[in-house]
Amino acid sequence: MKKFMCEDFLLTTETAKKLYHEHASKMPIIDYHCHINPKEIYEDHKYDNISEIWLGGDHYKWRAMRSNGIEERFITGTDTTPYEKFEKWAQTVPKLIGNPLHHWTHLELREYFGINTPLSEKSAKEIWDKANAILQNLTVRKIIEKSNVRLVCTTDDPVDDLKWHKLIREDKTCKVKVLPAFRPDKAINIDKPGFADYINTLGEVSGIDIKTVDDVKSALASRIEFFVQMGCKAADHGLDYIVYEKTDDNLDDILKSVLAGNPIDQKKADAYKTEMIVFCASQYKKHNIVMQLHYGAVRNNNPVAFKNLGPDSGFDAIYGVSNSGARLGALLGALEEEGILPKTIIYSLNPTDNAQIGAIIGCFQSSEIAGKIQHGSAWWFNDTKTGMIEQMTSLANLSVLGNFVGMLTDSRSFLSYTRHEYFRRILCEMIGGWVENGEYPHDMELLGKLVEDISYYNTRNYFGFELED
Amino acid sequence: MKKFMCEDFLLTTETAKKLYHEHASKMPIIDYHCHINPKEIYEDHKYDNISEIWLGGDHYKWRAMRSNGIEERFITGTDTTPYEKFEKWAQTVPKLIGNPLHHWTHLELREYFGINTPLSEKSAKEIWDKANAILQNLTVRKIIEKSNVRLVCTTDDPVDDLKWHKLIREDKTCKVKVLPAFRPDKAINIDKPGFADYINTLGEVSGIDIKTVDDVKSALASRIEFFVQMGCKAADHGLDYIVYEKTDDNLDDILKSVLAGNPIDQKKADAYKTEMIVFCASQYKKHNIVMQLHYGAVRNNNPVAFKNLGPDSGFDAIYGVSNSGARLGALLGALEEEGILPKTIIYSLNPTDNAQIGAIIGCFQSSEIAGKIQHGSAWWFNDTKTGMIEQMTSLANLSVLGNFVGMLTDSRSFLSYTRHEYFRRILCEMIGGWVENGEYPHDMELLGKLVEDISYYNTRNYFGFELED
Amino acid sequence: MKKFMCEDFLLTTETAKKLYHEHASKMPIIDYHCHINPKEIYEDHKYDNISEIWLGGDHYKWRAMRSNGIEERFITGTDTTPYEKFEKWAQTVPKLIGNPLHHWTHLELREYFGINTPLSEKSAKEIWDKANAILQNLTVRKIIEKSNVRLVCTTDDPVDDLKWHKLIREDKTCKVKVLPAFRPDKAINIDKPGFADYINTLGEVSGIDIKTVDDVKSALASRIEFFVQMGCKAADHGLDYIVYEKTDDNLDDILKSVLAGNPIDQKKADAYKTEMIVFCASQYKKHNIVMQLHYGAVRNNNPVAFKNLGPDSGFDAIYGVSNSGARLGALLGALEEEGILPKTIIYSLNPTDNAQIGAIIGCFQSSEIAGKIQHGSAWWFNDTKTGMIEQMTSLANLSVLGNFVGMLTDSRSFLSYTRHEYFRRILCEMIGGWVENGEYPHDMELLGKLVEDISYYNTRNYFGFELED
Repeated sequence: MKKFMCEDFLLTTETAKKLYHEHASKMPIIDYHCHINPKEIYEDHKYDNISEIWLGGDHYKWRAMRSNGIEERFITGTDTTPYEKFEKWAQTVPKLIGNPLHHWTHLELREYFGINTPLSEKSAKEIWDKANAILQNLTVRKIIEKSNVRLVCTTDDPVDDLKWHKLIREDKTCKVKVLPAFRPDKAINIDKPGFADYINTLGEVSGIDIKTVDDVKSALASRIEFFVQMGCKAADHGLDYIVYEKTDDNLDDILKSVLAGNPIDQKKADAYKTEMIVFCASQYKKHNIVMQLHYGAVRNNNPVAFKNLGPDSGFDAIYGVSNSGARLGALLGALEEEGILPKTIIYSLNPTDNAQIGAIIGCFQSSEIAGKIQHGSAWWFNDTKTGMIEQMTSLANLSVLGNFVGMLTDSRSFLSYTRHEYFRRILCEMIGGWVENGEYPHDMELLGKLVEDISYYNTRNYFGFELED
Repeated sequence: MKKFMCEDFLLTTETAKKLYHEHASKMPIIDYHCHINPKEIYEDHKYDNISEIWLGGDHYKWRAMRSNGIEERFITGTDTTPYEKFEKWAQTVPKLIGNPLHHWTHLELREYFGINTPLSEKSAKEIWDKANAILQNLTVRKIIEKSNVRLVCTTDDPVDDLKWHKLIREDKTCKVKVLPAFRPDKAINIDKPGFADYINTLGEVSGIDIKTVDDVKSALASRIEFFVQMGCKAADHGLDYIVYEKTDDNLDDILKSVLAGNPIDQKKADAYKTEMIVFCASQYKKHNIVMQLHYGAVRNNNPVAFKNLGPDSGFDAIYGVSNSGARLGALLGALEEEGILPKTIIYSLNPTDNAQIGAIIGCFQSSEIAGKIQHGSAWWFNDTKTGMIEQMTSLANLSVLGNFVGMLTDSRSFLSYTRHEYFRRILCEMIGGWVENGEYPHDMELLGKLVEDISYYNTRNYFGFELED
Repeated sequence: MKKFMCEDFLLTTETAKKLYHEHASKMPIIDYHCHINPKEIYEDHKYDNISEIWLGGDHYKWRAMRSNGIEERFITGTDTTPYEKFEKWAQTVPKLIGNPLHHWTHLELREYFGINTPLSEKSAKEIWDKANAILQNLTVRKIIEKSNVRLVCTTDDPVDDLKWHKLIREDKTCKVKVLPAFRPDKAINIDKPGFADYINTLGEVSGIDIKTVDDVKSALASRIEFFVQMGCKAADHGLDYIVYEKTDDNLDDILKSVLAGNPIDQKKADAYKTEMIVFCASQYKKHNIVMQLHYGAVRNNNPVAFKNLGPDSGFDAIYGVSNSGARLGALLGALEEEGILPKTIIYSLNPTDNAQIGAIIGCFQSSEIAGKIQHGSAWWFNDTKTGMIEQMTSLANLSVLGNFVGMLTDSRSFLSYTRHEYFRRILCEMIGGWVENGEYPHDMELLGKLVEDISYYNTRNYFGFELED
């Protein structure tokens, strides 16, 4: 029996162990998609206690606690102490057998706090004290350095002034590169509340009096140029489902109507969205920016919780049925036909879309770069051991695993870099298993390179990040 | 090599074996959803022969025999002898490699008849004789006691007088609790043949002259109260797909039209169904009844077989595409908003819905009880080794496995209690595997409790069954 | 550690090894669905070099090369040499870890060329020379004989004169049976370009002046009769999705309109297709022909590539959402009701349809023959180790694995017969694993027969091929 979370965690074959310890684990980290706050890096934020860093904003943990029957006041309430919240989390952890939160929790305890005791109600106080003592000397930058992170892409709104990115760039003591990523959802979601106000702000920031669709395009183009100057290499679109819709109506009229406060029907909204995504793609192509498409989330399902807690509080789910498969082909086909298809990474929240994505990406590859169109790493609800195995197995079956750009955290927490370790262990275990079962040659030079590429070099080369090694 | 179906059947690690033999196998059984006939318990039915108990009403076996090219007269025909039917079944079994029927058959032979010989054409006669001899002394109650079953929920129509439940309750010699479960499908399926007649009967039984939707509600409410007096703790809805539909038409007019014999379109039917399900949910909430939602079956696909054999004869299949994912969120959201969301268990017949269900349940949890909204055990076509592993893996990834209410038989046969053994072995094998691979701490006290909870205590506590241990 | 692709490739248990080496590997091959050119068999084609046979028409390999960033000129270009293309393929192979192309490549190298060196940039020249030397003596017929292939069904258009089939039949030196299979897609796809021209040709070939739907039927019926005389036992329909549509419009009017050059809407097109498929089924039933239904491909997604390279060049993908599940039940139900349901094999390109297919086939079985309605072997994008395991696991769970008609290549290449070896190894590994884990009796006589049936005898009996052993 293996010890819980030992050195060879998740690694069962000799080849897997060798690949992980001698190759994967030595690679730096590029976290090309996450939601951390650059201000906290610049200011080198320090945490009061482990509840702040663990439970302050992590809706994954909130959801698990709710599923364990914990009262909301111990989750997001203001009338409970950080330690009370920590205790409730500690109480929940042992029941999370088979859940990635169980592994993440203990990887983080081990990596950043040197704690090997499993978290439970019994060990809560001891771990609380020990972790908090260590947090006295563990700032954001120290976490990043300890994790061997070389580069981080944040997620930023087009109207953002990227002030913190500028300050970080000018700060010679900061060893990690922090680049902005362009996320124009608010300019695209014409059917969401707040759109008109947002367009107003976008106009102000870009110095354009927005009246037409072309004005929106000009504003976005100018913001993309600003982001590019600030080092931006990645963009991201969050979609309920993949849109590809045409309309006979005039898009300017549609825009004007919405800006005037009128409602919009789904078909017209989708036509506007399609037009804008196609335009953004053309700009990404021009500036060699990678376009990420995330789709399949159905958000804010619980109306009571939404009223009390707002969005991103752990009440999202997976979109079931949509025509995303067919529309994805149509969208990419249209971009290809116009010669404006940028490097693209596709993620669906519904794991049953894996095969569809694996097949469609093979229709739009190019000699511009190996693996131009990618099937993104297992996302959100799929960011689990089984989810990763399924995504990589599907990718290996349908495409070229050797060109995969690999893992990202998508996280709000600076402790999440251990998810790269988790991913790399699973990758090495898969490959090691194939080799030891005679399904791939036992050529350690080749295998070591494959693993290093998927862990680091593919990402660096694909995005074109300027890093020394 | 392990012996076929030996003591450690399906258990490969020491931890799994220990968890099963020292914990899971010792737990009593609560079968909270099944289709057995309470009359047979009250009368302590005795079987003439093994064909009666195995082939009398089991459309799983019928379907397998048809797939093996057996003539219908040897399946449901009246011109063949029980032994001839048994022989055809015996002939089919060896070809069912990898099918749960193969395992169930041999688990039942071992458990209830002490037979370890694999069933085949060759062994048919010997097994027939031996099993029939044992059946002379094996009544329904003896099977239930031998299986350590403490409580059974049957599936009952609102118009049922629950006569057999009453008699069982009054019979002090009966050691098993037998509770009714409320299944109002016939009052809800306004688009199915026989609806008007059914509403008539419902009116008579509840003493209400049903003319309006409110009358239907009153009738159902009074029947629910009667069921509650009879100990009911569970309700069940069988839906083609999850409905959540509104209409501008008057529902009373729609009802009147259908009662007058007119056809109804799908949208109106779905609006009526939505109204009734929401009403039922409010009553379940009031009486602390668990609501089960089963959806995704497309029934009676073979028109020739339907004409000859009627429903529930083995001609059902899996509904492919529906908007159940999104509608499920809308339905639960509406119930939550009105404060009438009862404890709910969700089952889909399409295994590709697993992730959707696992995600949506996390949006509606509550501190009323841990795991208030549950992803139900792998159902019907998914009630297989792989189906259970997939459902539990998905549940572990997306929710809290430790709060799972676990297995039910959904069966018409009293020999099916071995399916709880099958489930428990698979559960212990999963958990044992994780532990021995270092993915969970080797804390046998904690693990033993987890396994006992999922096997028994979670069910008892969730439904609120009054059982002594 | 096992050596790469050793004798026991993919076989890990003693039972699996025994089943494969003593049973499966000894069975002849029937390749009942493929796309090879019968002319090449008749003329006993000889290849100039390994690029011709490997890269001449294999869009699987093209797609993989594109995904590896190879320029199109090294894939389908005419300004590059065969060796340059081979080199690019060799460069791609090591990155295809986990992809079936990696296994197929090395199985073919080992089986037909005696080469055990893994293909890579380094070994490219050596393998090129060695393989080409062997190709000097390796004709199409020699490949077929070496592969122990007894019978091949090609895929043929109704207007084909089957000249090469006739010549092969008359050639006493040809040891393999080559039968035509009827694929009437062009007569059915009323909404595809070229339909009117095709109907014209069909009319000429069958001597019927086609003006009405009945004329099309008569023409197809006469071609089916001709195919039957030529030994045809199999038909095949390629559908975007399963159609089952009715229309109130007159189908003759619809046909006339399309023949006159007018466009057609989807509903009418689907109604015409439904009518024709139902008619074809009636003819297959009459002539005891097996109907294959392949659905779920969305073709020619890349408009630029389609302009340059035409169809079947590696730009197809998987259809996402359709109502195929429900329509499949309706279509088979209608055929059953009219008494014209032939033996049928169903394949979907979307692996998430597995459970739906496994369930629906169980509704239409018959005593005509065991396993009358089949869930076809993992197809195209699913023709992978995991795809086969999933299809067979689903089939075993939901139907009778022992009656499965097993593998086909669906290939354009004569080297693909090793895919039968691949399939058989996977089958034996699955069954061997079950047996050694105590999930099925260790009865080698029974198991050997099961494996031989699925490898060969079931196919022979199901199609009614006249073969001596």
